[in-house]
Amino acid sequence: MSNKTPNGEIAKTTVGVIGCGYWGPNLIRNFNQLPISRVKYCCDLDDSRLKHMKSLYPNVAITKNYEDLINDPEVDAVAIATPVSTHFPIAKDCLEGGKHVLVEKPLAASIGEAEELVKIAEAKQRILFTGHTFVYNAAVQKMKELVEEGELGDIYYVSSIRVNLGLFQEDINVIWDLAPHDISILNYLFGSEPITVSTFAKSYIRPGIEDVAFLTLQYPKNIVAHIHVSWLDPCKIRRTTLVGSRKMLVYDDTSTLEKIRVYDKGVTIQPHYDTFGEFQLAYRFGDIVVPKINDVEPLKTECIHFIECIRNGARPMSDGTQGLNVVKVVERACESAKLGGAPLALERHQGGSE
Amino acid sequence: MSNKTPNGEIAKTTVGVIGCGYWGPNLIRNFNQLPISRVKYCCDLDDSRLKHMKSLYPNVAITKNYEDLINDPEVDAVAIATPVSTHFPIAKDCLEGGKHVLVEKPLAASIGEAEELVKIAEAKQRILFTGHTFVYNAAVQKMKELVEEGELGDIYYVSSIRVNLGLFQEDINVIWDLAPHDISILNYLFGSEPITVSTFAKSYIRPGIEDVAFLTLQYPKNIVAHIHVSWLDPCKIRRTTLVGSRKMLVYDDTSTLEKIRVYDKGVTIQPHYDTFGEFQLAYRFGDIVVPKINDVEPLKTECIHFIECIRNGARPMSDGTQGLNVVKVVERACESAKLGGAPLALERHQGGSE
Amino acid sequence: MSNKTPNGEIAKTTVGVIGCGYWGPNLIRNFNQLPISRVKYCCDLDDSRLKHMKSLYPNVAITKNYEDLINDPEVDAVAIATPVSTHFPIAKDCLEGGKHVLVEKPLAASIGEAEELVKIAEAKQRILFTGHTFVYNAAVQKMKELVEEGELGDIYYVSSIRVNLGLFQEDINVIWDLAPHDISILNYLFGSEPITVSTFAKSYIRPGIEDVAFLTLQYPKNIVAHIHVSWLDPCKIRRTTLVGSRKMLVYDDTSTLEKIRVYDKGVTIQPHYDTFGEFQLAYRFGDIVVPKINDVEPLKTECIHFIECIRNGARPMSDGTQGLNVVKVVERACESAKLGGAPLALERHQGGSE
Amino acid sequence: MSNKTPNGEIAKTTVGVIGCGYWGPNLIRNFNQLPISRVKYCCDLDDSRLKHMKSLYPNVAITKNYEDLINDPEVDAVAIATPVSTHFPIAKDCLEGGKHVLVEKPLAASIGEAEELVKIAEAKQRILFTGHTFVYNAAVQKMKELVEEGELGDIYYVSSIRVNLGLFQEDINVIWDLAPHDISILNYLFGSEPITVSTFAKSYIRPGIEDVAFLTLQYPKNIVAHIHVSWLDPCKIRRTTLVGSRKMLVYDDTSTLEKIRVYDKGVTIQPHYDTFGEFQLAYRFGDIVVPKINDVEPLKTECIHFIECIRNGARPMSDGTQGLNVVKVVERACESAKLGGAPLALERHQGGSE
Repeated sequence: MSNKTPNGEIAKTTVGVIGCGYWGPNLIRNFNQLPISRVKYCCDLDDSRLKHMKSLYPNVAITKNYEDLINDPEVDAVAIATPVSTHFPIAKDCLEGGKHVLVEKPLAASIGEAEELVKIAEAKQRILFTGHTFVYNAAVQKMKELVEEGELGDIYYVSSIRVNLGLFQEDINVIWDLAPHDISILNYLFGSEPITVSTFAKSYIRPGIEDVAFLTLQYPKNIVAHIHVSWLDPCKIRRTTLVGSRKMLVYDDTSTLEKIRVYDKGVTIQPHYDTFGEFQLAYRFGDIVVPKINDVEPLKTECIHFIECIRNGARPMSDGTQGLNVVKVVERACESAKLGGAPLALERHQGGSE
Repeated sequence: MSNKTPNGEIAKTTVGVIGCGYWGPNLIRNFNQLPISRVKYCCDLDDSRLKHMKSLYPNVAITKNYEDLINDPEVDAVAIATPVSTHFPIAKDCLEGGKHVLVEKPLAASIGEAEELVKIAEAKQRILFTGHTFVYNAAVQKMKELVEEGELGDIYYVSSIRVNLGLFQEDINVIWDLAPHDISILNYLFGSEPITVSTFAKSYIRPGIEDVAFLTLQYPKNIVAHIHVSWLDPCKIRRTTLVGSRKMLVYDDTSTLEKIRVYDKGVTIQPHYDTFGEFQLAYRFGDIVVPKINDVEPLKTECIHFIECIRNGARPMSDGTQGLNVVKVVERACESAKLGGAPLALERHQGGSE
Repeated sequence: MSNKTPNGEIAKTTVGVIGCGYWGPNLIRNFNQLPISRVKYCCDLDDSRLKHMKSLYPNVAITKNYEDLINDPEVDAVAIATPVSTHFPIAKDCLEGGKHVLVEKPLAASIGEAEELVKIAEAKQRILFTGHTFVYNAAVQKMKELVEEGELGDIYYVSSIRVNLGLFQEDINVIWDLAPHDISILNYLFGSEPITVSTFAKSYIRPGIEDVAFLTLQYPKNIVAHIHVSWLDPCKIRRTTLVGSRKMLVYDDTSTLEKIRVYDKGVTIQPHYDTFGEFQLAYRFGDIVVPKINDVEPLKTECIHFIECIRNGARPMSDGTQGLNVVKVVERACESAKLGGAPLALERHQGGSE
Repeated sequence: MSNKTPNGEIAKTTVGVIGCGYWGPNLIRNFNQLPISRVKYCCDLDDSRLKHMKSLYPNVAITKNYEDLINDPEVDAVAIATPVSTHFPIAKDCLEGGKHVLVEKPLAASIGEAEELVKIAEAKQRILFTGHTFVYNAAVQKMKELVEEGELGDIYYVSSIRVNLGLFQEDINVIWDLAPHDISILNYLFGSEPITVSTFAKSYIRPGIEDVAFLTLQYPKNIVAHIHVSWLDPCKIRRTTLVGSRKMLVYDDTSTLEKIRVYDKGVTIQPHYDTFGEFQLAYRFGDIVVPKINDVEPLKTECIHFIECIRNGARPMSDGTQGLNVVKVVERACESAKLGGAPLALERHQGGSE
C-alpha cells in the first residue's frame, strides 16, 4: 500500500467496489478513470450485474464474496453501494479488515450503527467516508461560499423540494432515500446540525413505507429548513430556495446551465419617522445573477477527495461523523412521522460517544 | 329593486363597492362593464382613492361613509374589499340594512364573526357571498371536472405553493392572506372541509406577523394537502400538484397558456406472481396533455354569478358557509402554528349553529 | 391651446382618438389617465365600438366623422389607430387642420405617403409622431444603453423572432403588420437605417397576403439582422438575440420579469504562438445577468413623450422621419419578397425629398 | 465474416473505428456494448487519444494506421469519424478493401466525392451508411409518423434553429457542420430532396469560415423550410417548428422529457356566407399533447441498424444516396451564400451518374 511503485512513480490507490446496482457503476467508472486510483474488484450478489461490469471493464476481477476484497492486501480502499440495511455489517468488516471505506449515503440504517462505524474507524485509524455527493457539487459549494461571504445576509429560511416519480427503494422509505441529500447540504451550508426536526409523512403505494414526506428542521440562529421529498410526483424537481435578509437564492439541480440564481431582492422594515409610527416596508427588486458554475461531475470530485484523504491522512469533508449527523436527523424525522409530526430534539443519542 | 324597467327591459342590478384599494377597483371595473349590473357608489376612507375612481368612472358617486350605500334604496348589493378586520362590522350593517353582500376572502377575521354573518344573512334572507375567486377560475373548474370524472383516480395528496416577495398585509399574517385561496380550492375540489390541520409558521420581518408558513391538511378519504405560503420568496410561484392513483396533474396559475398539465404517469404495486413474493412495482410514463382552458377573467365569472344569485335567489357556489369553512381552517391553522405545529381537529366550533 | 387654465393650473392637452378597434382603446385609456392630457373624442365607423367606449368613458364624445375632431379648436392632438391604408388620408387631413398627430405604426402604406406626411408636418409645424411603441419599452432602452456603452462590444448580428397564431390583418401582410416593431427597434439600437434588405415570404391562408416571412437586413458596420415574422406559429415568441464581440444578449418580450439576459459569453481567435500557426480559439463562458427592468407600460411612456413634445416643441424620438425610415424598409422588403428574395438597396426613394 | 461461431452462436460483427476525437468514442462505446458487435480497432493519429481509448477498452487494439483495419480479414465494418475532408479517401479505401462503411455526416466534402463513394459501394456491393443520427432519433421518428398519418394536415412550413456557442470546426463552416442534421431530418420527413436552396451567411470569427447562416429550402408541395444555424449564439437551441393545416408541432431536442409538443391550433379561411363576401377566418386553439417518446439513445438505434443491414443485406435508411442528397443541399447552400443568397436549383450535378 505504498504510494510509490518500484520505479518511483506514484502508485494508483487500489479500490474494490461492493454493489453494482444503480449507483455502484458510477463509482467504478470514476475510480477507474482517475489517474490516482484503479478498481481491482467489482462485487455483487447478482451474476448478471457482475457479467455486465466485466464486459465494460475486462481487467477488473469480479466476485460475489466481499471477503475476497478484504483478504487481498493490494486493496487499499472499499466503496460500498449496497442496500442501506447492509451498509453496517459490510463497512464494519471492511474497516476491521484494515481497509479505508467509502459508504454511500445514508451511512447506516440507524444512529447506533453509524456511531459504531465511527468508533471502529477511529480505533482502526482508517478513513470512513460518507458518500454525500452533493457537498462535492460545485453549485452547492458556490452556495456555501455565498452564505459564508454574507452575500445573502442572515439566512431566514430554506425551502427544498426533491421529488419525482420513483425510484422506490426496496428496504427504506422516501425519507431515508432522498432526505439525506438535503440534510447533508444544509448541515454543510450552516456548519451545524439541526436542533429539532418535525415530519409529516404518508405511504400510498406500499403499506408502512412512506413515499411522501414533509420535514421541518430548526437550525441554530433561528434558521428554518423545510424539505419536501416524494417518490410520487409527476415532475422531477430538485429545487432549493435560500431566503436571506440581503438576497435570495434558488438552486435548481435539474438545470444544466443555470443551477444557481441569486436574486437581489429583499424587504426591510423601515424606521418610524412619522408621528403615528405607521408600519412601513421597503422592498428591493434588483438584478438576478446566474453565476457560472464549474461543471465537473460531483462524484469525480468526491472520489478524488477520498483518495487524497487516504494518501494524506486528511479528514474528509464528509467523514463518518457527518454521515452520523445525517443519520441522526433521518432517524428522528421518521420517529416524528410516526408520532404524527411532533417536533423532536436532536439531542445526543443515549450512550453515544460522539 | 325590480328586474324590469318601465319599458320592459331587464334593469341593471345596482351595486356599491366599499374599499377602493388593491382589489376593489377590479370589482368596480367588472360590475361596471357587465350588462346586468352597474356601480352606483365607490366608498373608501382615502380621498385620493375616491378621486382616482371618480376620474375613471365619472358617473359613479363617491363617499367616505358606507351608510350612504345602505340608506339608498336603489342599491341592491354591496361588495366589500376592505381590510379583513373590518369585514364583519361592515357586512353586518349591510346585511341588516337589507343588502345582498359580497365579501372578499377571508369572509371575516374569526370563526365567530363568520358564523354570525351566516346567521344574519339567513335571517334577513339576503345573499352572503364570499369572494373565493379561484373557484370561478376556469382552470380550477377543469381540475374539479377531472377529479369528479375519476380521470386522476383516487386522490393521494396535493402539494400547493403560493409564494412571492410581498405584498405584506398590514393587519393579517400570510396564512390569513394567502392560504384562503388554496383552502377554498381544496374544499371545492373535494367537496369537503379538512378533518385536521397542522401548521408551522415563522415571522421574519415583523415580530408576531408570520410571513412564511407550511400547512398540512388532512381531508377525508385519506387525502393529504400540503400548502406552502410565503411573502418572502424570490419567485412568484402558484403551483398545485394533484397526485392521483391513475394520473397526476399540475396547475400553474402563473402560466398564461398552459395552466393545467395532466400527466399519464403512475405507479402500481403488482400482484406477486413469483414464489418469493418479491416486491414489484409497475411504473407508467405516458403522454402529457395540456387542456385548452377558457381564458375568461375569473372575477367576471364570479360577479355574474353573484348578480344571478341575487336575481334567481340561488345559493352561491361560494356562499357564507363556504366562507365560514375556510375561516375555520385558517383560524385553526394559526392556533396550530402557535402550538408549534400540533395537528388540530376541525370539529364544530363551540356554540356554533352551522 | 394654451397650457394654462384661467386659474393658473397647467391645462390638460386635449386629444381625439380615431379608431377604437384593437389598439385604439389603449391610447384612449392612457391619454385619459395621464394628468397632462384628456380624451375629448373617440371616433370610429362602428357603432358598437363607439357605444362600448362611451360606456367606459361617459364623458367622452363619440363620433363617426373625424372631421368633428379637426373642426373643434379645443382639440390639440389626434391619435390615429385605424387600418393602415387609411393612415395617410386621415393624418394628412388632421395635420392640415393644424393638429399634432400620432399615427400608429406603420406610419403609412407606402414610402410616397410617408414622405408626404413628413413634408406636410414640417410645413404646418406640427408634431408628426409615429407609434413605435417598442422604442419606449424599458427593455429596449436598456438594450440601447448596453449597446452604446460598449457592454456587448461590436455587434456582429441580431436574430429576431416575432411569431404567433394570428391576428391576421385585413388589409396588410405579416411584414407590414409585425416587422415594423423589429425594424424600429433595430434602427433605434444602431442609430441608422439598414443598407439592404432581402426577404423570403409565403402566403398560406389567403392568396397574395404573406403570412410568414424571413427578412435579412444589412446595417452599417457589417451588422446583420435577421427577422422571422409569422401569423402561423403555435407559440407566441418575441425574442431578439444580439451577438456582440464581448457579450451576448437575449431580449424576450413575453417574459414578465426577465425580459433581458446578458451572457458573458464569447469566442476570440487567439494569436498564433506556436510554430505551426495552428488555429486556436478561446471560449468564454461566464455569468448571466438579468438586469432589473422598470415595468412602466411602454405606451404610457410614449403618450407622455407625445404630449411633452407638443408642449415643448421638441422633436419626438419616433418622429415622422423615423416612421418613414421604417416604411422604406418594409416596402423594400415586400418588393424583395416579390422578387424571390433578391437583396434590395435602401437608397433614397425616387423623387424623395428627404 | 460468417454470422455463426463454431458452436452455433451468432458471431459478433467486428468493427474498427477510425477517428477517436469528439464523436468517435460514442461509436466505440455503442458498438462495444451491443451484443451483436464488438470493436476490434481504434484508429487515430493522436497518441493521447489512442491511449485514452485503450484505458477505457483494454481489449481493443489501437493503431495510427487505418490500413491495419483494412488488412485484417476479421474486420467486417469500419466506422469513420474523422475530419470531413478525410471522409472521402478513407471511406474509398475501406470500401475498396471490401469493408462495410459507416461515415459520419456529412458523407463527404463535395457532391463529386459523395457520388463516387456511392458508386464504389454499389460496385463492391458493400453497405455505405451515413451517420445521420437524427433519423434514428425517436422524436424525429414520431414526427415522421405524425406527418405521414396526416395528423398535422398539409405541411405549410418548417422553421428550424440549431445554434449555440461553438464548437467551431477546423476545416468546415457552420453550414457543413450543423445544417446536415436539419437537412437529413427534412429529407426524411418529406421523403424528398428540396428543389431549391437559398442561403445568407456571414463569418465573424475567422475570415472566410461562415459561423452564422440562414438557409431557405423549397420542397415539393409548396413546403418551405427555413434553417438558422450558428456557432455564435449565447443559448443552445435545437428547435424545429412544423406548421400544418390541421395542427402544429414543436420539436425541442434540448428538452429531456418533452421533446415533442403537438398543438391543436390552426386557422382556416371560412366560406363566404354573407352577402358582402367579407373576409372571415376561424381560429382553433385546442389542447396541447406531449407524446411520450422512447428515450433510447439514437446512436444505439443507428448502430444496431448498421449491423443488421450488414447481416441482412438490407438497404440502410440513411444509405449513401441519402448522404449524397444532404451533401448536394449543403454544397448548393454554400454556393448560394457566396452569391449573396440567390436561390439555386438542386438539379442533378453535372456529370453526376445517380
